[in-house]
Amino acid sequence: MLYFAANLLDFKSEDMQVPVKATIITIGDELLIGQVIDTNSAWIAQELNKIGIWVRRRVSVGDVWEEIWQTLDEESKDAEVILITGGLGPTADDITKPLLCKYFGGELITDEKVLAHIENLFVNIYRRPFTDRNKKQAEVPSVCTVIHNARGTAPGMWFEKNNTIFVSMPGVPHEMKGMMTDTILPKIEERFPGNIISHRTLLTAGIGESFLADHIQLWEEKLPSNLKLAYLPNYGMVRLRITGTGSNRNDLNHQLEEEFSTLKTLVEQWLVTDKDNTMPQVVSDLFKSKKITLGTAESCTGGYIAHLLTRDPGASAFYQGGVVSYANEVKQNVLSVSEDTLQTEGAVSESTVKQMVAGTLEKLKTDYAVAVSGIMGPDGGTEEKPVGLVWVAVGNKEKIVAQHFNFRFDRSRNIEMTSIQALNMLRKLVLETEY
Amino acid sequence: MLYFAANLLDFKSEDMQVPVKATIITIGDELLIGQVIDTNSAWIAQELNKIGIWVRRRVSVGDVWEEIWQTLDEESKDAEVILITGGLGPTADDITKPLLCKYFGGELITDEKVLAHIENLFVNIYRRPFTDRNKKQAEVPSVCTVIHNARGTAPGMWFEKNNTIFVSMPGVPHEMKGMMTDTILPKIEERFPGNIISHRTLLTAGIGESFLADHIQLWEEKLPSNLKLAYLPNYGMVRLRITGTGSNRNDLNHQLEEEFSTLKTLVEQWLVTDKDNTMPQVVSDLFKSKKITLGTAESCTGGYIAHLLTRDPGASAFYQGGVVSYANEVKQNVLSVSEDTLQTEGAVSESTVKQMVAGTLEKLKTDYAVAVSGIMGPDGGTEEKPVGLVWVAVGNKEKIVAQHFNFRFDRSRNIEMTSIQALNMLRKLVLETEY
Repeated sequence: MLYFAANLLDFKSEDMQVPVKATIITIGDELLIGQVIDTNSAWIAQELNKIGIWVRRRVSVGDVWEEIWQTLDEESKDAEVILITGGLGPTADDITKPLLCKYFGGELITDEKVLAHIENLFVNIYRRPFTDRNKKQAEVPSVCTVIHNARGTAPGMWFEKNNTIFVSMPGVPHEMKGMMTDTILPKIEERFPGNIISHRTLLTAGIGESFLADHIQLWEEKLPSNLKLAYLPNYGMVRLRITGTGSNRNDLNHQLEEEFSTLKTLVEQWLVTDKDNTMPQVVSDLFKSKKITLGTAESCTGGYIAHLLTRDPGASAFYQGGVVSYANEVKQNVLSVSEDTLQTEGAVSESTVKQMVAGTLEKLKTDYAVAVSGIMGPDGGTEEKPVGLVWVAVGNKEKIVAQHFNFRFDRSRNIEMTSIQALNMLRKLVLETEY
Repeated sequence: MLYFAANLLDFKSEDMQVPVKATIITIGDELLIGQVIDTNSAWIAQELNKIGIWVRRRVSVGDVWEEIWQTLDEESKDAEVILITGGLGPTADDITKPLLCKYFGGELITDEKVLAHIENLFVNIYRRPFTDRNKKQAEVPSVCTVIHNARGTAPGMWFEKNNTIFVSMPGVPHEMKGMMTDTILPKIEERFPGNIISHRTLLTAGIGESFLADHIQLWEEKLPSNLKLAYLPNYGMVRLRITGTGSNRNDLNHQLEEEFSTLKTLVEQWLVTDKDNTMPQVVSDLFKSKKITLGTAESCTGGYIAHLLTRDPGASAFYQGGVVSYANEVKQNVLSVSEDTLQTEGAVSESTVKQMVAGTLEKLKTDYAVAVSGIMGPDGGTEEKPVGLVWVAVGNKEKIVAQHFNFRFDRSRNIEMTSIQALNMLRKLVLETEY
């Protein structure tokens, strides 16, 4: 899905700095039996990129001594930074800590500061008995630098061996993220000050990946070799990201701005945003800047549009709320969709979604409303109205417009696509209405 | 977070079959810059487990020739099955296909069946011009077995080398899943008929991981060596999974049932379900089996509870809908929460959520309702009502109960925790009310 004009790890030019390479290792059988989706790695990769560290590989291994040991050996050959998450739970049989202790030499010792921190959490915050099993979490290898975990019990551990930095962190996402932000990222940045990676990202809608590639081919072929272009298609939209590397931040930013500006002009007619924002963020920013309010009426997306709008903080500035009108009775009783329309044209119809918009504008007293009704699958389709058919309407007091889509994905992706396309229709209506 | 009584990859017993080992390789710079969360690997791992294949490692590499080549070399030393996703996009510079062609020998040839399939998609379904760039997707290495992609353009490719099976698939989740289910999993199962892995899973709520571990320690220590116990804590609940391996399905299932039955008795007071279901699924099943209906009223969770209930198909059997009452005006106008309560006690209060339940029962005419209001962060907290404070109420016509929680996570996790705990309160109320 991605292609790059030049290979970032393949620099030949002499004034080009080779980026610091990192590996992310996630430990835990839960990752190998598929019980848990690894969201940590993507976040870590993004944060490392921002400080000029390039993630070369991500490896997940089980709670198996030989596998972890071998992975540490192999990855440290090619990476200067190895970030490890997981395997540090409160259960005594977790093997990552004793393994790291053996791998780097030394012995397990109780860290008094960590012990006091954990005891305080159990006694004053969790209000649960402080058992021997919990006390063991304060044990750390004698050769590591302890990283404080302000949000949980398991401490982080920083090791160095043969010019490679190894950092072990708990797998609980908010604990790991806090530790990274507070301590680990600043420490790594301090160690590798000269490496600069910078990105510019924009989002397009209404053009497919291959047509976009054809459209910008001539520009792309002339990109300097330290800039790479990535195509990131998702939800029927394509995100374009230019990644640049260099040794001087000003020069790199100047070069990036110039190319980014050309790219923006080239894709102007499909441009949604020239920031690294999602569609919900673009819509939120638009409503906030215009000081207008929004209400939602969802049937088939079952609250997902509302969730997308309220997932990030700040929605209360424009989002009044919404109705999840899953049953027809709710469409009638709460949103005043006419019984006649529901019976003659059905819940998945242009009239129904337009009435849902009108009902929302009236009941929630908002400036704009968006409404969706469709068949997300896997069941419920008919010949006339197949799975994937969705009607979307957006409107304000002056104007209500509707459009239908035919999605061909599985249920969860149909829900996502519907939500994103509905927000895009809303965005367009606001842009053509408000100045 | 996981610990196992015995190491599954470390069998000594002679009558124990060594499981077939697999590696999942995901290719794409988008995974290394953190733009995309890898959800494919978890799904693949689950499906492989069901047919007795044990995932040993997961590796993500960028679109870099040497890195991919080296990873194929390394992983094939220890794995009999290597599943590869990604790197097969429509852009000519994607390197995975030419690389595989070179790695396994042979040349790229146009597969006429694939060509006809892609042409049909473009001309009849997508209704877009069929360009040379698209035609290239019909090229496959001459030494591979082509796997039909019923849901998209990029075909799958099956290779064999030194007794290892390599399968390359597109990274688009629903295309990959369809291909796996239709063709690849049956083919792998046929090849390795004797390997059996089986799981039994239950979900507990109301007891922490370490206390649960202490509580079942004696039983766990006596588990036969071919059974492993995993602790999978999430959302303040702990899932327990017994994984068994063996060569005879009946014997293994009998052995698993016996141990699982003992475990269920041991954790009875905290048991939510003895199936591998999520909390929303448990609540859905409960409402369907009792033939009762549900409505939701969400402030701080902004539609997430509604989404959890409608994410899986079948919600229309019990879920009527809900109101996302983000603004106080919506709480008043749609749910009839009194202005006086909102002014004197505030939106985050016991009275407000109780009135939200009452309003939902009345407006949506449901048997049960759940309502939440809280401060999810990062801003909006006060000394009296800090970030993480949530009031939840659940009720029916006879009874409304409320409870408050203090979560200490980031915004997205606070939203998830609130939603799951609200569903758990609802589950308990239904269980104590309906017989």
